[in-house]
Order: sequence, then structure tokens, then C-alpha cells
Amino acid sequence: MSQYLSGHVRLGDDLTSVVILDQTLLPNEVKYLTLRAPEEMVEAIQSLRVRGAPAIGICAGYCLAALAQQRKGLPPDRFRAELHRLSARLNASRPTAVNLSWALGRLGRRAHAMGDAAPAAVAAALREEAIAIHQEDVAMCRAISEHGLTLLRDGDGVLTHCNAGPLATSQYGTALGPLLLGTERGMRFRVFADETRPLLQGARLTAYELHQAGVDVTLICDNMASIVMKNGWVDACFVGCDRVAANGDAANKIGTSGVAILAKHYGIPFYVLGPTSTIDLDCPTGDDIQIELRDPEEIKSKFYARPMAPAGVKCYNPAFDVTDHTLISGIVTERGICRPPYGQSLAALIPPLDNSPAR
Amino acid sequence: MSQYLSGHVRLGDDLTSVVILDQTLLPNEVKYLTLRAPEEMVEAIQSLRVRGAPAIGICAGYCLAALAQQRKGLPPDRFRAELHRLSARLNASRPTAVNLSWALGRLGRRAHAMGDAAPAAVAAALREEAIAIHQEDVAMCRAISEHGLTLLRDGDGVLTHCNAGPLATSQYGTALGPLLLGTERGMRFRVFADETRPLLQGARLTAYELHQAGVDVTLICDNMASIVMKNGWVDACFVGCDRVAANGDAANKIGTSGVAILAKHYGIPFYVLGPTSTIDLDCPTGDDIQIELRDPEEIKSKFYARPMAPAGVKCYNPAFDVTDHTLISGIVTERGICRPPYGQSLAALIPPLDNSPAR
Repeated sequence: MSQYLSGHVRLGDDLTSVVILDQTLLPNEVKYLTLRAPEEMVEAIQSLRVRGAPAIGICAGYCLAALAQQRKGLPPDRFRAELHRLSARLNASRPTAVNLSWALGRLGRRAHAMGDAAPAAVAAALREEAIAIHQEDVAMCRAISEHGLTLLRDGDGVLTHCNAGPLATSQYGTALGPLLLGTERGMRFRVFADETRPLLQGARLTAYELHQAGVDVTLICDNMASIVMKNGWVDACFVGCDRVAANGDAANKIGTSGVAILAKHYGIPFYVLGPTSTIDLDCPTGDDIQIELRDPEEIKSKFYARPMAPAGVKCYNPAFDVTDHTLISGIVTERGICRPPYGQSLAALIPPLDNSPAR
Repeated sequence: MSQYLSGHVRLGDDLTSVVILDQTLLPNEVKYLTLRAPEEMVEAIQSLRVRGAPAIGICAGYCLAALAQQRKGLPPDRFRAELHRLSARLNASRPTAVNLSWALGRLGRRAHAMGDAAPAAVAAALREEAIAIHQEDVAMCRAISEHGLTLLRDGDGVLTHCNAGPLATSQYGTALGPLLLGTERGMRFRVFADETRPLLQGARLTAYELHQAGVDVTLICDNMASIVMKNGWVDACFVGCDRVAANGDAANKIGTSGVAILAKHYGIPFYVLGPTSTIDLDCPTGDDIQIELRDPEEIKSKFYARPMAPAGVKCYNPAFDVTDHTLISGIVTERGICRPPYGQSLAALIPPLDNSPAR
């Protein structure tokens, strides 16, 4: 795994900042940013400088820990009020990925459990919790990769959408994890990466990560998935997820539901891969998942040398869509592979005593 | 209809050149090119400065007529040999659209039928034939628009892919024709235009044409068609075609087959609109249609300020795909609407005495 793919989100050495690889500049530029002010952190998440549900969770944890460290000299009451305000502010930066609120909630509970402890002690505990979230993600991705790899044979063709690799998580990734792990073990896959408009995470990040790792990857436009499947080149689809409802409906990058419908049409299994932290049993179905709408200019002008649509034309730019559970062959988590009916298999995966949908 | 949308392909006033609107520069620039040399003509077709199956046919007719006029002073034998050579050269510029070879074949037969006539007379006849092809296309698009309009109700939502409007034809267009004609008559539609990667004909041309004509158009990325359909916003899909096989399989811009599969999944009717010149009864099924593969840089770097994929990454870039006839609710031609089974309805549409699939 290339050096810069690990540690693309980390706590700064001064403990009061967060260092991230600016993913919006890939593949042309490898540039790290130091985030210190809350507005810089919110901007980095909103602008997708850091993106991918697990990576957003890791980043948000480090951000709150760094902000707490900055404020450890405040009187305890003000410190706690600030922590609450800053957590809410970070939490509002993006609405769809459950990992964001999950990570912040976990740090919040840790602080709450410490009662009247001194701000410096709370800040240290939050840092510990944020590091734990990161380390657990590494282990989770590894376990997801192992489970996912059981679904593949040497030589398989795999189609993926958006980016659910190391850059979206910590290491290995979710949807790309089995491919990277299998490649490390000498297996060979032929991967088709949807470019994933409008922000091109597939072209800029997935093709980049797989190419770096020596995986045979072919970049296609999103609308070429149908012909690639028809050509018989795809044995399985592997995608990540931003939130999975209790019935198995899965929100993921816009276009994922279309890939799932094509896969069903062509008789190709379609797998969703993600940590159990992405499963939200409090969310009954996909209809209850809020879908973020983003700036039309992402479609009309972003990345282009000149605008590619007439100035006055309307755009609809949802960042995610929901794939109906009936289209999903299996949901691969660090605890194993859930199969339909998901209402039962997902609930069985997550013990009722867990204090959050994530643990 | 805006002034510059009519006459975007025409014979030059000197009769020895062809004038085209350079569609690669839209929507930022409205610039006309004068094509005089065969290599300019081939380049214009290959580079999609003129595109859309019917428009390519019209353009190819004018090109051969202009080249004939330039060479009318040659000895008859050399004139005929030149005509043959130039026609083959134009014909090789793009492989998928049947209209290209159809238009050139029609001019070839006209020349052949004149036996030993003087080159100047043959050149005049070819010009007459090319103008007739253009005029017939205007009438055909009008008739297609009338038939297509019977499939729509006031207020309908329509999704379209790529560009099958006036810029792809002569006037009105095929897939966009019913929408433009209905709008002229005071009907209102809500149109969703797929941007159509990699060359963005939907963003650059369809959104432009519909916006100019005052139609309510919303631009989306190709991978958003699924959520737009799921939202209940689409009552019908209207797309053009580049070649229709005898069994109803239809080749059209890459991604069309995916739209058709989504439409079937969501229970939305999917219509293919095109002149009978696009129907190739000599082609039994879609498997017999050659699919043009284009330059990977169209995906990786074209239009962008900087490359959007790592330099060494492979791309697969087919320009078209084939939509299975089982996914098509109807094929709308100037002679009426064909319904399944297409083996019968298409054959019935085209009298066996026609001297080409086009007349």
C-alpha cells in the first residue's frame, strides 16, 4: 500500500490540529492541509477534501479532539458548552453519512461519562477515543476485506462505483478492500471503475488507488456500466455505503441504485460493503434517509476549462441515492456477511445492548 | 426555433463547400466552419463537429456533392473514380450510424443511374439529391414529432439521453421533436436531460436547445436517472437511434441501454425515435451492429482544466451501446409507431421494393 494512502487523515503532532490529504486535488497533486479552526474543518468536510463515510467519521473525531485540546484552558462549564456547540457545528457539515454523527456522539458520551473531570483530562480522553475510532476502522476494513474476499474467485471481473478504498476509510477500504487484500495475496482481478460524476471520485481516487496498488483497473463513464456488464466482463459489483437502514436499503453515492438495477437485469450479484457503524437500525427504511442536494455548478462547470452547460439551465444534483434492499445480494460487514431478509440478519448482527448503532 | 438551430449544416453558396455549426464549441461559442477539403470533412465528422445520425447523413450528402462540384472539370472516367474514392473515404469516417452510408449510397446510385452523363450534370444531380435528403429530413422530423406527441400528455415528465434534437438532425429533431412541437402548441413538459458523458451532448446541446426553446429542462448526470425515475418525475423516456436492427434492437449513444433497463425497472415506457432511414433490415440483431471505440482521453482529460484520471490508467470508451428490443415500448418513425413484435412491425413499415432501407 502506498505511503500516502495510509495516514491521509491524522491528528497533528501539536494535538491541536488535524492533517488531511486534500482529495479534491487528486490525482494531479498530493497536498496535505492542516485544519485548526472549526470553519476550516467544516469547509474540508463540506468541500469533500476529506470524504467517504468512515473517513469523515475518523476526521470528525480528530477535529473535536483537536478543538477540545485548544480549549482545555477554559473554565469547565464554558469548556463543556463549547464542546457541545462545536460538535453540533461539525455534525451539521454533511447530512447523509451516519459515521459523522456516530463518531461525534461517541466522543460526546465519553466526555459526558467523565462528569466533572478537568477539561485537560476530557481533551485527552477525547483524543484517545478518536484514535480508537481510527484504529478500529483499520481493523474493521481488514475484517470486511477478508469477508468480502470469500465472495471472489481469482480472475473475477468486479465493477465498483465511487470510491470506497483506503482514501474513503483508513486502510484497505471497504468495497476496494477485498481487491487490495486479494492482490496482496497474489490473486488477480479485473476491476471496472465508474468515474462517478459529478465529482469523479472513481476516476480521481479509485482508479488512482487501484493503479498504485498494481490492480488491473479500467476506467469507464457511469453510463458504460450497462455495456460492460452485457459484455460479460463483470462477475460481481462491490460498492460502499453511507447509511444502511434496518430493512437493508442502502444509501451510497449517487448512481449506486442504477448500478444495482443493471446488475439485477444482467444477473450479476451486487454487494454492499461497510462497517456496522454504517448500519442505522433507528432508520426503518431508505425513505427515512435524508439525501443531500449539492451545488448545480458541480455538474455545470466544476473541473472544466469552460462551463459545459448554458448559464441559465437548472440542475438536480443529489449526492446520494438509496438502493432498494431487494437489489442487494449481501451486505458485507466486519462481523460477517448479511443475507436477505435483512430485517433479521442486520438486527442479529448488532446486539441490542450496544449503546449506539455503531459498536 | 432559434435562427442558428436551422441551417446548422448547409451547402456553401459557392456550391463547392459545406458550412457547419461547430457543435464541439457549444454552448460557449456559436461558430460556423467552412469545409472544403475531404480531410476537413472527415475530421469534422470524426471529431463530432457535426454529429447525430441524421445530421451526419445530411452532411455527408452535401460533402460529396461539394467535392463533385469541385471536380466537375475532370475527364468523366477520372471524375467517376474520384467520386467513388471520396465516397468511400467519407463513409469510413464513422462506423455506427447507418445514415452516413445510406446518404452516400443514395448519391452513388443517382450518379450510377446517369450512365455516361457529363461530370457537371452529375455534380448538379448529386447536389439536388443532397438537398432532397435534407428536405426530406425536415419533413421526417416533423412527422416523427407528430407521432411522438401522441404518446405525451400536457405536463408529462420526459427523460432523454444524449442529443436527438435539431442539432442532431435538421429541424425539430427526433427524440426532442415532440417536446419542441408540443411546446409550440402551448403544452408544457418537464424534461430531464442526461448530460451524456464523455462528450456531454446532453449538457452542451440538449439543455441548450431546450432552454433556447423555452422548455422546462433540468440537467442531470447520467447516474442520476435512477433517482429521478424513483422520485416519480418521469412519465416516458424518449431517445434517438443510430441504427435499428430488424428485430428492434437499437444502437444509440452509450448509456441508452442503461436508461432502458432503469425505465423497465421503474415501469416507465421507453421510446426510440428515428427516421426509417435508421432501420437496417439487413442487420438481423444488435449483435451485428459494429460499436465504435473512441479515444480514452475523451474520458480522462477532454474538457477538463486538468486531467481527471492518473496518466497510466486504462479506459474503455465505446461510443454506443445496443438497447435490447425487449426493453423498447415503441419505435417512433415518420411513418408511424412500431410496437412489438418488431420483427413484423418494422418489416411492415418498409415496403420490400424500396431500393434501400431508407426510402
